[in-house]
Amino acid sequence: MAEPQAEQMASLDINSEGTNAEDEDFVDPWNVQSSSATGVDYQKLIVKFGCTAIDQELIDRVKSVTGKDPHWFLTRGVFFSHREMHKILDLYEQKKAFYLYTGRGPSSEAMHVGHLIPFLFTKWLQDTFDVPLVIQMTDDEKYLWKDITMEEVRRVALENVKDIISLGFDMEKTFIFCDFDYVGQCPEFYRTIVTIQKHVTFNQVKGIFGFGNSDSIGKIAFPAVQAAPSFSSSFPLIFNGKKDVPCLIPCAIDQDPYFRMTRDVAPRINLLKPALMHSVFFPALQGANSKMSASEPNSSIFLTDTPKQIKDKINKYAFSGGQATVEEHREKGGNCEVDISFQYLRFFLEDDEKLEKIRQDYTSGELLTGYLKKDLITILQKLIGDIQEKRKTVTDDLAKAFMTPRKLNFDY
Amino acid sequence: MAEPQAEQMASLDINSEGTNAEDEDFVDPWNVQSSSATGVDYQKLIVKFGCTAIDQELIDRVKSVTGKDPHWFLTRGVFFSHREMHKILDLYEQKKAFYLYTGRGPSSEAMHVGHLIPFLFTKWLQDTFDVPLVIQMTDDEKYLWKDITMEEVRRVALENVKDIISLGFDMEKTFIFCDFDYVGQCPEFYRTIVTIQKHVTFNQVKGIFGFGNSDSIGKIAFPAVQAAPSFSSSFPLIFNGKKDVPCLIPCAIDQDPYFRMTRDVAPRINLLKPALMHSVFFPALQGANSKMSASEPNSSIFLTDTPKQIKDKINKYAFSGGQATVEEHREKGGNCEVDISFQYLRFFLEDDEKLEKIRQDYTSGELLTGYLKKDLITILQKLIGDIQEKRKTVTDDLAKAFMTPRKLNFDY
Repeated sequence: MAEPQAEQMASLDINSEGTNAEDEDFVDPWNVQSSSATGVDYQKLIVKFGCTAIDQELIDRVKSVTGKDPHWFLTRGVFFSHREMHKILDLYEQKKAFYLYTGRGPSSEAMHVGHLIPFLFTKWLQDTFDVPLVIQMTDDEKYLWKDITMEEVRRVALENVKDIISLGFDMEKTFIFCDFDYVGQCPEFYRTIVTIQKHVTFNQVKGIFGFGNSDSIGKIAFPAVQAAPSFSSSFPLIFNGKKDVPCLIPCAIDQDPYFRMTRDVAPRINLLKPALMHSVFFPALQGANSKMSASEPNSSIFLTDTPKQIKDKINKYAFSGGQATVEEHREKGGNCEVDISFQYLRFFLEDDEKLEKIRQDYTSGELLTGYLKKDLITILQKLIGDIQEKRKTVTDDLAKAFMTPRKLNFDY
Repeated sequence: MAEPQAEQMASLDINSEGTNAEDEDFVDPWNVQSSSATGVDYQKLIVKFGCTAIDQELIDRVKSVTGKDPHWFLTRGVFFSHREMHKILDLYEQKKAFYLYTGRGPSSEAMHVGHLIPFLFTKWLQDTFDVPLVIQMTDDEKYLWKDITMEEVRRVALENVKDIISLGFDMEKTFIFCDFDYVGQCPEFYRTIVTIQKHVTFNQVKGIFGFGNSDSIGKIAFPAVQAAPSFSSSFPLIFNGKKDVPCLIPCAIDQDPYFRMTRDVAPRINLLKPALMHSVFFPALQGANSKMSASEPNSSIFLTDTPKQIKDKINKYAFSGGQATVEEHREKGGNCEVDISFQYLRFFLEDDEKLEKIRQDYTSGELLTGYLKKDLITILQKLIGDIQEKRKTVTDDLAKAFMTPRKLNFDY
């Protein structure tokens, strides 16, 4: 998968209006462009992509069928859009099986906090619904798109896998795979890929992904590789050969084109359309108009950052929505919409009441940006410190165990 | 691989001129069209494809470096064209390693005698040079191109594999694989495929194969799958991980586009260009203007035909180059150029002197077509009878053994 959060920041507020309403945002798996200072207009994107907003009714239903509080990513609109999530909840109510699929394109050695969003939410979904999870590392995609050797992309992929494992996934319930390995380990995966490739034309991928005649045939064929894990036929060991176990895909909205294609082709190959939940993009430290990039270490907080680096970066770079002077701030108040510390707190501060109090006090001018930064530093130092501690225990052997094609702790 | 011999007949005489010199022959892996009554003009094809005629010097050199008589397919122009065969002979002289690669697209359950040509020649090459051989069954290609289920194409492929084994290949030196299986058994094969796919654009496959925007992305990506076995990196178990063992590909000339692409991409991915030897097409019983097709059982002799079927088909359908009456034939003589029995004898009668005598006596009118038919019937009944006898011993287990990825009886 491409870098969902990496390339562009955007407002978390799904109701925000672009400043130039006439200009369309552009979102595909490789580029996110918005003419708006507050980033992508997610409501417009929902209309454009033909997906459905995650509304209060869906959130309430998640709570009622699971008996658990919905993750704050749901209640705060971090995951803001879906496709057929109600069908998944129907299945859960009927005690029928489904599984989760998410992924990552291993383009940078160090993952940053934005990369964590789909994985943190996926872990919550898995814990809540107790279902199998497959995680695809699209090392082949990165090799095809980047000027990088196969050896390097495979090395980076393994580092990323260890980071992902460090988030606490349960090996009994989770299969992580790199395409360059798994295609060669599972004939059914290749067969599923070719089945998809037979039923998608160049015109279709041209329309969906903007491929041109100068693109490599590897790029042109790749969307089928990202589509294939949406079908349980790709995992015969996990699903005992069953081809009709439904799939739910949590991912950033820029990955939706792959799964629009997948959902389009599914009925034509007698397989089930996957359901989806889409997240917003994650903003760069510098604010909604700058790019977050793994090659720009100050644009985000990385899993490899020390506590001091986390503190220094946030203090120095986190774009402030506050006023020029303390006096002016006390008078006019801060702007949560653009303040990156507040935006990050929306992602990482679990306590709803505390977040709301911060919002009110910052908006009123009572709190200065420095207070928000201090809170954020504490939270991210803890989050990343915990991951780093866990990471020390993730040996090559453990990674290999997660990546071994096998039955999981579920019967089919 | 597509069906090299199946679709169209052609004269064996590589010097034959098309009757309409202005019309170009059209040859690609899926279509062979010629405006000439005697079939494709192979000399023109050599110029068009940019390959090199197999001349007497090359044939003499094969004899001198191997100390064996060249196969009659060489001396009679059945294999008429090559790319860099002298380099292969250099290697052999220097006692350096190379390997053979050929293949088949398993589109029809029963192989016919035309399908045997590349395999019979490949067996002679292997016996003569004592080198490893890999045989690719492109079941994925047939699935992508035809309206056929994956199960059916895999079933047909296994039948074809058994036919091929029945030609007497040595299991210690031969690896046969179906793409749908082997891609899932060997990560290095997929990696080689993706490496090729990264370095070939849609424009290139459009130019080489005529793909259009409505073609499936599977077709567009497939040429890399047929290219990959040209590189020893695709067979780590056989070549002990060595990526620089050169490859010689015997195939029908219609497969050359795949390997033009392969040779073009090879230096850009630091792999070696494969060498090639090209055969002519095999004519249908009905003559040079009719199509040979597995769906038309009377257009050729199949490996499943009984002795009586062989006899009846040849007697009834083999196009005659003789005259209308015995008297006229005695006076004017027969035309070996169009007489299918004579053409088939050029493929299957080993005895050069006897063939030359038949040619002279038929041309002079001394021999009638019936005599040629009788000889051909005897030869094909023996050839096919022997294959059928051997076929009875080819169990599923033996086929499985040939198709198990493994080290062969060669050290690298």
